[in-house]
This record gives sequence, C-alpha cells and structure tokens, in this order.
Amino acid sequence: MNSLLENIVSANLHHASHGHVATYIPQLAKVNPNQLGIYISTEEEEDFFAGDCFVPFTMQSVVKPLILLQALMDSGENAVRTLVGVEATGKPFDTFNYSDQALTGANINPMINTGAIALCTLIRGKTYQERFERLLALTRRLAEDPNIDVDESVYRSEWETGNKNRALAYLLRAYGLISDDVDDILSCYFRACSILVNCRDLAKIGHIFANHGIHPGTGEEMFPAEFARYVNATLATCGMYDGSGGFALNVGFPAKSGVGGGIMGVIPKRMGIGVFAPAIDRHGNSVAGVKALEALSRKLDLSIY
Amino acid sequence: MNSLLENIVSANLHHASHGHVATYIPQLAKVNPNQLGIYISTEEEEDFFAGDCFVPFTMQSVVKPLILLQALMDSGENAVRTLVGVEATGKPFDTFNYSDQALTGANINPMINTGAIALCTLIRGKTYQERFERLLALTRRLAEDPNIDVDESVYRSEWETGNKNRALAYLLRAYGLISDDVDDILSCYFRACSILVNCRDLAKIGHIFANHGIHPGTGEEMFPAEFARYVNATLATCGMYDGSGGFALNVGFPAKSGVGGGIMGVIPKRMGIGVFAPAIDRHGNSVAGVKALEALSRKLDLSIY
Amino acid sequence: MNSLLENIVSANLHHASHGHVATYIPQLAKVNPNQLGIYISTEEEEDFFAGDCFVPFTMQSVVKPLILLQALMDSGENAVRTLVGVEATGKPFDTFNYSDQALTGANINPMINTGAIALCTLIRGKTYQERFERLLALTRRLAEDPNIDVDESVYRSEWETGNKNRALAYLLRAYGLISDDVDDILSCYFRACSILVNCRDLAKIGHIFANHGIHPGTGEEMFPAEFARYVNATLATCGMYDGSGGFALNVGFPAKSGVGGGIMGVIPKRMGIGVFAPAIDRHGNSVAGVKALEALSRKLDLSIY
Amino acid sequence: MNSLLENIVSANLHHASHGHVATYIPQLAKVNPNQLGIYISTEEEEDFFAGDCFVPFTMQSVVKPLILLQALMDSGENAVRTLVGVEATGKPFDTFNYSDQALTGANINPMINTGAIALCTLIRGKTYQERFERLLALTRRLAEDPNIDVDESVYRSEWETGNKNRALAYLLRAYGLISDDVDDILSCYFRACSILVNCRDLAKIGHIFANHGIHPGTGEEMFPAEFARYVNATLATCGMYDGSGGFALNVGFPAKSGVGGGIMGVIPKRMGIGVFAPAIDRHGNSVAGVKALEALSRKLDLSIY
Repeated sequence: MNSLLENIVSANLHHASHGHVATYIPQLAKVNPNQLGIYISTEEEEDFFAGDCFVPFTMQSVVKPLILLQALMDSGENAVRTLVGVEATGKPFDTFNYSDQALTGANINPMINTGAIALCTLIRGKTYQERFERLLALTRRLAEDPNIDVDESVYRSEWETGNKNRALAYLLRAYGLISDDVDDILSCYFRACSILVNCRDLAKIGHIFANHGIHPGTGEEMFPAEFARYVNATLATCGMYDGSGGFALNVGFPAKSGVGGGIMGVIPKRMGIGVFAPAIDRHGNSVAGVKALEALSRKLDLSIY
Repeated sequence: MNSLLENIVSANLHHASHGHVATYIPQLAKVNPNQLGIYISTEEEEDFFAGDCFVPFTMQSVVKPLILLQALMDSGENAVRTLVGVEATGKPFDTFNYSDQALTGANINPMINTGAIALCTLIRGKTYQERFERLLALTRRLAEDPNIDVDESVYRSEWETGNKNRALAYLLRAYGLISDDVDDILSCYFRACSILVNCRDLAKIGHIFANHGIHPGTGEEMFPAEFARYVNATLATCGMYDGSGGFALNVGFPAKSGVGGGIMGVIPKRMGIGVFAPAIDRHGNSVAGVKALEALSRKLDLSIY
Repeated sequence: MNSLLENIVSANLHHASHGHVATYIPQLAKVNPNQLGIYISTEEEEDFFAGDCFVPFTMQSVVKPLILLQALMDSGENAVRTLVGVEATGKPFDTFNYSDQALTGANINPMINTGAIALCTLIRGKTYQERFERLLALTRRLAEDPNIDVDESVYRSEWETGNKNRALAYLLRAYGLISDDVDDILSCYFRACSILVNCRDLAKIGHIFANHGIHPGTGEEMFPAEFARYVNATLATCGMYDGSGGFALNVGFPAKSGVGGGIMGVIPKRMGIGVFAPAIDRHGNSVAGVKALEALSRKLDLSIY
Repeated sequence: MNSLLENIVSANLHHASHGHVATYIPQLAKVNPNQLGIYISTEEEEDFFAGDCFVPFTMQSVVKPLILLQALMDSGENAVRTLVGVEATGKPFDTFNYSDQALTGANINPMINTGAIALCTLIRGKTYQERFERLLALTRRLAEDPNIDVDESVYRSEWETGNKNRALAYLLRAYGLISDDVDDILSCYFRACSILVNCRDLAKIGHIFANHGIHPGTGEEMFPAEFARYVNATLATCGMYDGSGGFALNVGFPAKSGVGGGIMGVIPKRMGIGVFAPAIDRHGNSVAGVKALEALSRKLDLSIY
C-alpha cells in the first residue's frame, strides 16, 4: 500500500506544472509548487503515506467543513440550515453574482466564503477570539494533534488583502443575515483559514467524518452521525468549487479543497485521506492532488457512485 | 418490507397537498395529484412495492439519465463530455441565464434541458426517429418491459407548448453546439419525455445503474461500469434540479426526478427505487415522493454519505 | 459645408481599420470595410454630403426606430409601452441574460432585438407579409424614395443564420409576450433588417424625426409629434447598444446604428444625418461613422446636452 | 408662471400617496411624505417657485453630479473616464450583479453608488475631510448659498447603516479600482449625501450645468463647458436610476434624483429646476416630483428630444 502511494506520488507530481500557487494572498505565493503528499487513515492498524505528507500548509477552505460542524454542534441543524442553504450555487468561491435580488440564505452554501463567514456567527463564544479557539480546539481534537496552530504571517496577509471577503461580509450584514461586527467575524474566519495542518491531520479529520462521528480507534462519539452526514453530503455536491461535478465523476467521494493546496477526502465507512500539492487550477483545486486522488480512487475502487 | 413500504406510503401521501401537478403541459394538469407509489428492486428474490406503483406516468426529465447513457454508448465519454459539462449550474431546469458570455458546453450539464437536448445529437441514427427508437429500445430493455411506449397526447402537448425548449435548442445552434434541425431534435427529445413508465420500470432501470451496468438477475453486462458511474455521479450532483443539495443531505443517494412526478433512485451496489407522486414543488420535484424517499432512506440506512 | 464634410470623411476613414465588417451574416462579411459616407438634411434649400453616401447597405438595427414608429402608429402608445419597456438594459443587442426571472416586457426595450421582434406583432396587417409591406411603405415614404427594397440575398442569409433571434422569439412566446407564429414574425423582422438604404435615405428619415413628424419641405404631418419624441428619447438612451452612454457624451444626440454600418442621427428641430461605414466595433457600432459624427458634432455644436 | 407652478404643485401633490419615504436610512423615514416644492432658475430677472421649495432635505444621490464635476475639475476627463465608465448598467443604484467577471471601470458609471464612491478618490485633498470640504465649497458656490451644510444626524445614520455601500467599496478595492482606506472614502461619500439643500439650491446648480458652466448672472466661467456636457449627457442616460428611459420619454431632459426626494433638472441653454417631494417609487425617484416635472415639461415644451 505504501508503495502504491509512492507510485501515485511520483506519477502525478508532474501535473503540478499545470497549476499555479495562489498569489492573491502574498504568503501563499512563496510556497514551492513542486510538492505532493498523500496520507490515508483506515480501520487497519497502521496508516499509509507517501511524499510531502508532513509538510505543513494552511487549511484555507478545507476549514469550511469544520466551521460547518462547529456551527451544527453549537447551534443545531435548524439554525444552520435557516441561515445558510445547501444548494450548489454553480459559482466560484468568492462570487458576487447575487443577481439583483435580495441576498437570502437559500442562495449561499457552507462551502463558499459567504456561507462560511455567516456560519462563524453560529459558533458559540462570548468573543470571536473565543469562537475561533473552539474551532481550533475542535481541529486539534479531531486530528489528535495538540500542536496545530495558526500561521500568523498568513493570517496577517489574509487580513490585509481580504477585501473581497470584507465585501461579502458587509453584504451579509446589509441583507440582515448577520449582525455582528464584520472585523470581529473576519478575524475568526481568516484565523481559521490560516490554521496550519499537514496531510496526516486532514486524513485523521476526514476519517472521523467517514466514520460518522465515531473515533475509529476508541469508538468515542466525537459528534452526532447526522452532523457527519450533513457535512459529507455538502462536500459531495459543493466541496470542490466549480469542479465538484467533475470530481464526483472522476474521483467519486466527498472532499474539500483549499487554495493552500490541501484536499480532505472522506470515503464514508472506509477511510479519510489527506492530500497536499500547492499548485492549484482556475477553480481553486490542487491540480496534482486531484490527479493523485483520481488514480487512488481507481486503484482502490473508492467511488461511492 | 412490503408493510414498511405501505406505512411509508400512507404516512407521506398527505404531503402531496403541498405541491401541484405540472400545468405548463396541459396533459399533465389532468393527473390526480393524490397518488403515491413506491417500488424497490434488490438482489433479493422478490421485489417490494406499495401504493400506486403500477400507475403509468410520463418520464419527463427522468429520461435524461437514459439520454446520457445512450449518448455515452453511441459516441463515447470524450464526445459527451466535450459537448456537455458536468458541473451543477445552480439553475432551474429551463434556465436562460447564460449570462452575456457565449454559451459553452462547460456551462450546461446532462440533467438540465439544454444539456439533454444537446446530447440527443450524440445518439446514433440516420434520422431522429431512429435515434428515438434506440432510446425507447434501451428503456424497454433495461426495464425488461417490451410494452413501454409513448403517450402520444402528452407528446403532442409538449410539442405545442414547448417554446422554451425551442428557444434553448436555437440557442445551442446559435453558439454552434448543435447543427441539426431543431424540430428534428426536439421531436426526439419530446418523445423521450413522453415515454410512459411506472414505478416498477424506474426501479428496474435504477437497479442496473446501481449494479454498474450488470443485470442483477442474469449477470449480463448491459453497459460498461464507467458509464454507470458517469450517470450516477451526475445524478448525485444535479439530478434533483435546485433541490439536489437538500436531497443529498436528507435522502443521500443519486436520483432523478421529472415533472411528471416520477423519481428514479439509485443506491450503488444495493438497489433501484421507483417512486411516483405527481404533485411537484417549485423546483420540479415530487413532494410526497421526496418525503417518502427520505423516510425510506432513514429506515433502511440508504444514504451513501 | 460640403468641404467640411469631405474633410471629415477623409480625416476619419482610417478609423475603419479598428473595426471589422459583421461576419455572423455571411452576406455582410463581403462588404468592403474601407468606406465612409455622410449626408445631412436640413431646413436649408440644399442638402450636404460627402464620401460613399450613395452606396446602398442594409438597415439592420437602424430599422428598429421604424418598427417602433409603425407599431405606435398602428396600435398606439399604450399597447407599445405595455408590451415593451423603455429602460436601458445595459446589455448587448442580442443578450440572453434574462436572469432566472420570468421575462417581462419591462426588461426589454424597442432598440434590442427582443423588443423589436415583439413590436412586429403590433404592426397592422392580416399577414406578416402585409405588415412588412406597411413597414417598407413607411420607409419609402419618409425617405421619399419609392425604389427602396429588400436585399433578398441578405434576407436569406439572415433567415438561415438567425438562430439567436429564433431563440429570442421562442422565449417571447414561452413567456406569453407574443402568440403569433415565430417564423411568420421573423420573416417580417428579417426582411425589415434587409431593407437597402443609403446615407441620404437615413438623413431624410432622421430629419422627419428631428422635425417631430412634420415633413420639413411640405409641412405635412407624417406622424404625430409625440411618436417622434417617443422614438427620439428611446434612441437617446438605447440607440447605440452598449455604447449609448459614450455616444451621448462624445456626440450628444439621438441616433441608431446597425451592424450593416449605417447610423441615423436625429438632431431635434435642426437636422437629420445619415452615415455609412461598414467596419463595426464590438458593440456593433460603425467605428469610422461614430468618429465622423463626433467631429461633426464638435464642428457644428450639435450636442443637445 | 408662478401660478402655473402653483397649479402643478396642487395638481400633483396627491401622487405622493403612491410612494413611500426611504426607510433604509432611519433619519429619512421621519420626513413628512406629503410635500411638493418646485423652483425654476432662468435667464429672466426673477426666479419662479411654488410649494415646499424652501424646505431643506439631504441631497443623497443628487450630489453625484457634483462628485463627478469635482473629480473632472481636479483630475481631468481622462482619469475620470478611465476609472468609471459611462454606460447605463440597467441596474438599480446599489446593484451587486457584477456577474462572475472581474469588476472593471467599464461596468460602472458615475450615477450609481459604486461609481460615485470610486470618483471620491479623484477629488483633490490631503485628507478625505479636505476632499469633502472641496465638494461642499463647490456646492455652496454653485448654489450661491454659503450656509449649505451637512445634516449630521443623517450622516451618522448613513454611516451606521451603510453596509451595502461598504460592501461596494471593498469590492472596488478587491478589484484594484481604489486603494485608499474604505472608511475614509465613505466618510466623504456619506457626508456628501447628507448635504442639506432646498429646491432653490438645486435649481441654481442645475442652471449652471444648463448654461455649460457659465454663471447666468455674472457670465463668469465656473467650470469648463465640456465638463457640463459630460455631466449632462451622463444624467440623460443614467440620472434617474432604472427609470431613466421612462423619464427621457415622459419628461425629456437631463436630471438627477435622490432618495431624499430631490430632483435636479437641467434644460440645456434654458434653465435649471429643483424639485422636492420625499415619497419615492421602487426605483428611488420622487413620485410626485417626476409627475410635476412631466406636467411642467409639457406646459413649457422642455423636452430636448
């Protein structure tokens, strides 16, 4: 199995040349694009991995499923679904095309920036610092890695250049979907995007989603099964931005990508996968990462469709 | 099992009152809205069913997966994917919002009218009558029902009132995506929508998609497994119009609905389901049908996420 | 004055190189792009002209003010304004971006194809042949040129390639804005677009609009003053497609352009102008024609703003 | 003449009942909707007026032509036109429908919020306080009223509730159209919107635009004629929001309305008009104000078309 992964890494690394590291956040532009790592967490006794799987990178949008989960845990399914819909919008992650109509929750979803920003308001906490810390604690707990922390330079970079996210947040306020201070909410959201993880962390988190909230080792219920299904279903239809349809067809399981180059894969009842390859395509998805998952899915028959 | 289905039918029939039978095709407006049928085809020796499961209705959009399959069988995956994309458009089934940009294949998908009309041109046949007959033969073969035929009065009704589909077809021509005669293509498309089936037929067809192209009884390969995955993945992300995200969350398996009130459900490697309940919601999905599938999914743990 | 016009022609002909003749209608693609003609009709005893001002070309969209006028004359202002709005859509002449909302008359205007096609249904006549003939007769009468006729090869060319206009017409039908046969309506519309005129004809027609319906020579009322204002106001806000704002600023009077390269200018209470220069810009406006009008407006202080 | 105006006021006041005072700014919601004033400034020795023409109200969008003028005076036509286009967008004043494409200057115009906010950056001044003061001084000078000042409570109200304008400003920054601090720019913009004027002030300012920058009394050039034409042409195509086409047709001269209920009318080479009637329609235009201008235009033959 490890040699299979190594073959996949070496056979797919070259795809990185068809993408580019994200440049709209200056810190991300400094990353070496020629990296590919993969890590698999299964019921079996040992994990499997290959390549740059312990290189740290920022979660970026891969944190969205965790924001959704924390909002579900803290405010319940009704509040979450009332505030933010579940339909694919068919729009890029930072779309502004809310037509001329009033912006409503039904037109956004948890896997686009607007939805994720809105969901930060449903995380419990007296301050947004506290809310962020809940989110960080959740990430550490699910990944079983107490050392996970924020990359402060990426955070500052996001804060300084995040004008589109500020615009989206003020739009949410203008339409009454949120009422808290925009800077407070964004400090939480940008920090969440700047959490440093590696492939192993994503595989561990993904595995618990795959296992419907039950820790695969201890059997402990980390969160209710229905929240896992909520997240997994949302990933299946909207997790890969405007490439979600193609990913379902070519790879075939719920997954979430981030512009940092990470992808978290969830194969329900089977495994969690973490991938990292920082050169991304025009949709925002890791090029070599998607290709590696495609090869892996074919080899291990991972498609759920 | 049959009594479970009967309970589900009697407990969910009342949801029909929250929908309305489609009226834009006059023939459909005549249907009794208070009907609900369900039929399940599994590996087990006998099938299970309840309610109005042998009442005939027209396929409408439920025929779209068959158009896609026939196009795949006749022209191959490359031709299909080049002509029609796979991303959710986040738009209703007959959307005209192709923005101001040129219409391209990447902006449509096989489960919206524009995509399905385009795919008719990839079915083999000297005439569009011949192409339609290939499609009808495929439907009969998969459903194992040689008596399946077109409801001619619905067909004429669609032909007479199908101005939006004509507009979509001329738009496809204007952008060079199709070049055949629009009336010829639409005669095939409208006939396909007017094929009369019942829940049993949909369950049988769905079962073969679930079984990746292998006939569950005889073991015969009816079509390649990769085409089944293509169709199933497309259904998962776009099969239920603008309700696809909510369906993934509440029900959790690939499915296709039609404004005639039918839904074909595909539970990969497990079963096919046919549902009929003609009162539809504003997205075009059967109200009681979706509710019944939701109950069934919970009872039998059918969600794949 | 004639020498002024000749200077303007020779100084602005070179701008043609920044445009291209329309190619979507094959017949138009054959026209020599290096032409520029200009013709002015005023109260003074003689007219003024220079360049290729007697070269015939097809009206294309320049016929839209005449369709609007004939609809006003035959059905009255109420019927016209109920069917087709007057607001700028900010959209190219053949836009399909009717959002996801129902298409309503308020979203179209007489100077875009959708609006002009709809207005053909408000011209009086038992057949669409008869309606077209009313329109042709009006054109001949206003231009005082009984020899004006249709370029049959352009007409056939439009008929064969007019898929986008067919799509627009079926869309109008789908939303109940028109109910007549699409092919009938389009035969009238395409014929109207194919009427052959020259700069002199456009100047004469424009002069009557400028003179609020009164023939400048005979004093006869050709049509009511309020219809002239209706047309002129519509030209001012929407006559030059997506270049209407820039034209108002740089040139400053009501005008209508067509992809055949013609422009009809209306300077209220002063004069009518006809221009012809077939190389058009991306908005569909004659490049050298607009430049010539800009120079002329500055020289003669023609801006009404 | 004054009795004509009084007749128009009394005949059109009742139209106010078809509109509502703006409520999105709480301070505006307190205004008595049953008011109508009109003031005309001409070459003649005395002015004419009737009704509530000396009641102060905030300029709101009526200040947009002055922002445009100051930007033209301080940075020149090239800079203004490069930053902000001149085409009608066919969109409400606070539209967010910038499609999925990059926001460019060509897609906005000086009479919508996005364009006006952007133009504040082209006003000269070391601070935005200084820029605002230039704008206030210009307003006072053109209106010949040194007492014109800001309504501080409206300003604070705009500041607190202006989330959509904040969103628009951050969007401008995200696309690199502006780079200054959003709060600084908006403090200038919101203050400008909160300038208190009356009908007389608007008539005086409008008169100078009508007179192409020359003070009608003293003959002094207040600003270049080409800037007057720039502003007037922009008003003609975009000054009345989504009602600009209908206003051109029914009234027929350049004008700018604001949600405070004011309208400034510019009849080139003839007169300036100020109107106030605070109940506005769904486009944001004063209902009774537009009706009064319609009656006045017909009586005095003011249409320029």
